[in-house]
Amino acid sequence: MICFNCDYNEGCHPAVLEALARTNMEQTAGYGEDPHCGHAAELIRQACDAPKADVHFLVGGTQVNMVMIAAALRPHQSPVCADSGHINVHETGAVEASGHKVISVPGVDGKISAEQVRQVWRDHYESGTEEHMAQPKLVYISQPTEFGTLYSKKELEALRSVCDECGFYLYADGARLGYGLAAKENDVTLPDLARNCDAFYIGGTKVGALFGEALVIVNDELKTDFRYVEKQRGAMLAKGRILGVQFETLFTGGLYEKMGRHAVELALRIRDACAEKGWSFIMDSPTNQQFPIVPNRVLAKLGEKYAYSPWMKLSDQETAVRFCTSWATTEENVNALIEDIKNA
Amino acid sequence: MICFNCDYNEGCHPAVLEALARTNMEQTAGYGEDPHCGHAAELIRQACDAPKADVHFLVGGTQVNMVMIAAALRPHQSPVCADSGHINVHETGAVEASGHKVISVPGVDGKISAEQVRQVWRDHYESGTEEHMAQPKLVYISQPTEFGTLYSKKELEALRSVCDECGFYLYADGARLGYGLAAKENDVTLPDLARNCDAFYIGGTKVGALFGEALVIVNDELKTDFRYVEKQRGAMLAKGRILGVQFETLFTGGLYEKMGRHAVELALRIRDACAEKGWSFIMDSPTNQQFPIVPNRVLAKLGEKYAYSPWMKLSDQETAVRFCTSWATTEENVNALIEDIKNA
Amino acid sequence: MICFNCDYNEGCHPAVLEALARTNMEQTAGYGEDPHCGHAAELIRQACDAPKADVHFLVGGTQVNMVMIAAALRPHQSPVCADSGHINVHETGAVEASGHKVISVPGVDGKISAEQVRQVWRDHYESGTEEHMAQPKLVYISQPTEFGTLYSKKELEALRSVCDECGFYLYADGARLGYGLAAKENDVTLPDLARNCDAFYIGGTKVGALFGEALVIVNDELKTDFRYVEKQRGAMLAKGRILGVQFETLFTGGLYEKMGRHAVELALRIRDACAEKGWSFIMDSPTNQQFPIVPNRVLAKLGEKYAYSPWMKLSDQETAVRFCTSWATTEENVNALIEDIKNA
Amino acid sequence: MICFNCDYNEGCHPAVLEALARTNMEQTAGYGEDPHCGHAAELIRQACDAPKADVHFLVGGTQVNMVMIAAALRPHQSPVCADSGHINVHETGAVEASGHKVISVPGVDGKISAEQVRQVWRDHYESGTEEHMAQPKLVYISQPTEFGTLYSKKELEALRSVCDECGFYLYADGARLGYGLAAKENDVTLPDLARNCDAFYIGGTKVGALFGEALVIVNDELKTDFRYVEKQRGAMLAKGRILGVQFETLFTGGLYEKMGRHAVELALRIRDACAEKGWSFIMDSPTNQQFPIVPNRVLAKLGEKYAYSPWMKLSDQETAVRFCTSWATTEENVNALIEDIKNA
Repeated sequence: MICFNCDYNEGCHPAVLEALARTNMEQTAGYGEDPHCGHAAELIRQACDAPKADVHFLVGGTQVNMVMIAAALRPHQSPVCADSGHINVHETGAVEASGHKVISVPGVDGKISAEQVRQVWRDHYESGTEEHMAQPKLVYISQPTEFGTLYSKKELEALRSVCDECGFYLYADGARLGYGLAAKENDVTLPDLARNCDAFYIGGTKVGALFGEALVIVNDELKTDFRYVEKQRGAMLAKGRILGVQFETLFTGGLYEKMGRHAVELALRIRDACAEKGWSFIMDSPTNQQFPIVPNRVLAKLGEKYAYSPWMKLSDQETAVRFCTSWATTEENVNALIEDIKNA
Repeated sequence: MICFNCDYNEGCHPAVLEALARTNMEQTAGYGEDPHCGHAAELIRQACDAPKADVHFLVGGTQVNMVMIAAALRPHQSPVCADSGHINVHETGAVEASGHKVISVPGVDGKISAEQVRQVWRDHYESGTEEHMAQPKLVYISQPTEFGTLYSKKELEALRSVCDECGFYLYADGARLGYGLAAKENDVTLPDLARNCDAFYIGGTKVGALFGEALVIVNDELKTDFRYVEKQRGAMLAKGRILGVQFETLFTGGLYEKMGRHAVELALRIRDACAEKGWSFIMDSPTNQQFPIVPNRVLAKLGEKYAYSPWMKLSDQETAVRFCTSWATTEENVNALIEDIKNA
Repeated sequence: MICFNCDYNEGCHPAVLEALARTNMEQTAGYGEDPHCGHAAELIRQACDAPKADVHFLVGGTQVNMVMIAAALRPHQSPVCADSGHINVHETGAVEASGHKVISVPGVDGKISAEQVRQVWRDHYESGTEEHMAQPKLVYISQPTEFGTLYSKKELEALRSVCDECGFYLYADGARLGYGLAAKENDVTLPDLARNCDAFYIGGTKVGALFGEALVIVNDELKTDFRYVEKQRGAMLAKGRILGVQFETLFTGGLYEKMGRHAVELALRIRDACAEKGWSFIMDSPTNQQFPIVPNRVLAKLGEKYAYSPWMKLSDQETAVRFCTSWATTEENVNALIEDIKNA
Repeated sequence: MICFNCDYNEGCHPAVLEALARTNMEQTAGYGEDPHCGHAAELIRQACDAPKADVHFLVGGTQVNMVMIAAALRPHQSPVCADSGHINVHETGAVEASGHKVISVPGVDGKISAEQVRQVWRDHYESGTEEHMAQPKLVYISQPTEFGTLYSKKELEALRSVCDECGFYLYADGARLGYGLAAKENDVTLPDLARNCDAFYIGGTKVGALFGEALVIVNDELKTDFRYVEKQRGAMLAKGRILGVQFETLFTGGLYEKMGRHAVELALRIRDACAEKGWSFIMDSPTNQQFPIVPNRVLAKLGEKYAYSPWMKLSDQETAVRFCTSWATTEENVNALIEDIKNA
């Protein structure tokens, strides 16, 4: 079985493994206070053009979201997101487990607009019953979104602007950020994220690391005592240097960018093959996730050889599915899939 | 600087790294539902003689404690532990962050006795004000304790017995379990733990893994929906197989035991050197942590070359310190330390 | 200003005040363990034909919902409700503050249907990603709803039936239950609620008490240690007898029913006056809340003399508003309002 | 049976009941936004000489503590108190249910000293493992304490001073404040509390009200959005004016002080009778709670006629008990008790 069902089927980029092996017997301090974490943080600050940002390395995406939101909000405050937002759908209520109601609005292509944010503010502050409702305080976006789409720089700046008006924080979940940065349509750089967000994270788990996410906190208000909240949520890795070593590797020699481009190129080849076949898409994604609508009888056949994610049953004839590529996807496997799509 | 300050200064046993490299490009399912996790779980069930136990792999010790306790208790219920218990002292209130008050009693050598547990029951149920107090429900022990000491089989069975009387769960934190199993004085085996505890974990982070702990849930009552709570706390690793591969390695060919013995032997050599020097100990530890009382002028000298943990200032003349060994400690470094102690 | 804006503008029914005065200097035990609470509970068990139910008296509606849901659910479980449900909209995230995500579905007339509940079950258990999503476990309904509408006995029984299929609890918020029981269209009695719900509460705050709600727990699973969770949430009244005395009074001599009928009769007179005027309604309510659509120029005039709740701006010409009656509403005030509507 | 077991055996002072009756049919806004709450808050600000303080009325003591502490702290922060502190012992883990570990130190006469607070600061900030431990942030005291003792003005000012040094908030639980203010030894006035505490509450439940506590927030940092947190914890009374009316009454014409003096005078008469009998006391209390050590055979006899609180079994011969007086205690009952003590 060849897997296109998700972007974490394999271990990690060989260079990461080599770096772990090379540094394995070094003796370092624990809990992220070692030279590798320090160096990796510095590389990330440089890549983001954010010399004063705090950088923390955590193990997984749900964990970063959970800790950052718990650290940012008071008990009665809420993150606001598109209804498809990962925190709203696929984190088993991790944000609520910290006591915060997630306020969701209907997303368009997985995105929330500045106007929707403004409306959330109005719905709350013009209700006359503010104190009876959870208070919106932080806007959560994913870049790319859960549907592979991207916020443009203009959209991002509009969100920043409305957050400033409303007194909201802006936080971006970058689980697949590497695949967003590599998209041709993308005009949002790491420095753009750092300029516009109060905090965001750069995903490693899905982009070449064994595991790990790099949280970049730009706004000073969100920096205080972050490590306490991290530890309190079981999120501080004892041998933190394992995260440091991985991100050092990803942010040296352009590896993170290269892996992103690799995955996106292969994803677009799959996209093109589907399009040529005449299949349409539920979402126009320029990144590593593609969502074609496939005839069920073709799917049955493809499913014998390839793993994919069923996404939505559309009719008795057709199903929307997701094909994912990643840093680990081989040309060979993509060629095979494309060939089989052609001949389907 | 040669580090004896803790047991997680290095990465992992080379065999673990090799296994990660060997399996790196395999494509597997995520979230612990891969063959490596399945195999590792089976190896652990066999080692524990607990064919029906559930085994879950989590990333760190605070995380396991937090998730297991949250999964086991209702909102008004409490774990009970010695005052030196890790959950009471060094987890930044992670248990409380899930809503549960930790009830602590004065430990003796880091241990809680069956009689103390019975007294906690009485203090609650004979108070006449039960509903006004958090309800004790789970006894938390560490094997070995935070002070390197061990529960004997008799003590463990007495705890089991009192927990049965009181309707309490018994849970053991085995962060350093490998170093306990390897101690000469130890008479508590993995099957003994499985027979007497409702749940316990086998520590990997401090015993040869890059990171990771294997939670063994024996009591059926504690099994239901554990993975939901795990995910909700950000504790479900996307590429779970990284944990599976590590524990497969540790539990193949007796590696876990070998590493334990290695560390304990070296620790006892340090102990003997201290004793020969005439230094006494704040705790009589048969495991990998040793707590000698060292003259300050000697410490100053040793500190130039060796990292240790200051434990307790006893006077202007003397300080109790901790020396730790681990799977990674070299004979060479221990020889050097012993020599320097002799000549101090 | 004459108030029709809500149903808690006044203190309490004079009989309640007399009972408080009559019993004021009695010496009783605290925390609800006095004879008045015992007697009131017995009266309620009789009225509900539920001889084995537990009855607890709490201070307010948000509080009852918060405590009951916290006591019923494990950390990863969720209540399911219509999007207009009080717990979803107007409790400042109290359910989430206990760690539980509220799952909402689009309500029709403020109600959730059995089919929607079944779909929530399917969306969860047929997703293939159960553990990544909060687990639905309890269905929350309001009787009457936040819009004054009522579940029929048939609808209630269908909900019970689907809850049995799905393994869900059924819980009814009866903040305005007295006004539901009194509606001509109503065919759901207190014994029907007790037969079909696992728990429900009978509202006092809005129906003649100074404050207070009577929670009826029918399902044995939900009874254990309820008082612990109540105390833990600051919800156990020291002088619990004040609640007991009030509910003794409400459930003696049919006072609760009489007050209900009084309010509903007056509400229907207002409804009829609006209808005669040609105004339509956003909701067809048979209870004490009426939601006419009123021309803005008329509202401006009425607003000089009467307080009402603005509900929804419909256009530049019209606004939907809420008029509430209660046990305390006087015929005189209703006559005045009707007269002014006629002449508007 | 004549009750001396606690100070909430009766309803409320007749003047309170009269005020409730007098205002019963007024129509007011809900949720504490009515003129009575406004007026009561103003009376309290005047009594405290704190013109800028926020005053909130809540229903009970556990509730006020729970809401105030949740509103004041970030997730990883802790209140610090004497081990006998009400939040540490008798609130079923309400503070922990909001996620905060309570840090307790051994109290002397139920009190925590400035030096102990400083030591808590040192234990945390000089540990080298700050982030691994819950962070102390708020000092909780009770005035009078759970043992009836009082902080002197000097002790209070020392606590203020150490809190300023350490960056801690100081919060006083005044459940029985009326009985403290009335003690001859007392030199801490309401303005002293307002000058030295960041927040404190004036107890009504035990001092003449049906129920209710007046929270005074002096520090601006603690004011923001308090009502949100109050609502979120189910603590905002719908008919808030019931609390306003009660506190208006208590703070008009010196009623609160009169009731305090009444209870304390009668308590001291009981104290003197015990002392004359040759009984000693476990605590030297100048307030309404007295803790004599009574021979068991006498207790058996007294227990036939009087309810008291057993406090601590001291031997087979003697038991420490608590006798409470309150605003409602009659001279007649006290005379009877004294006579029976004399003749015991």
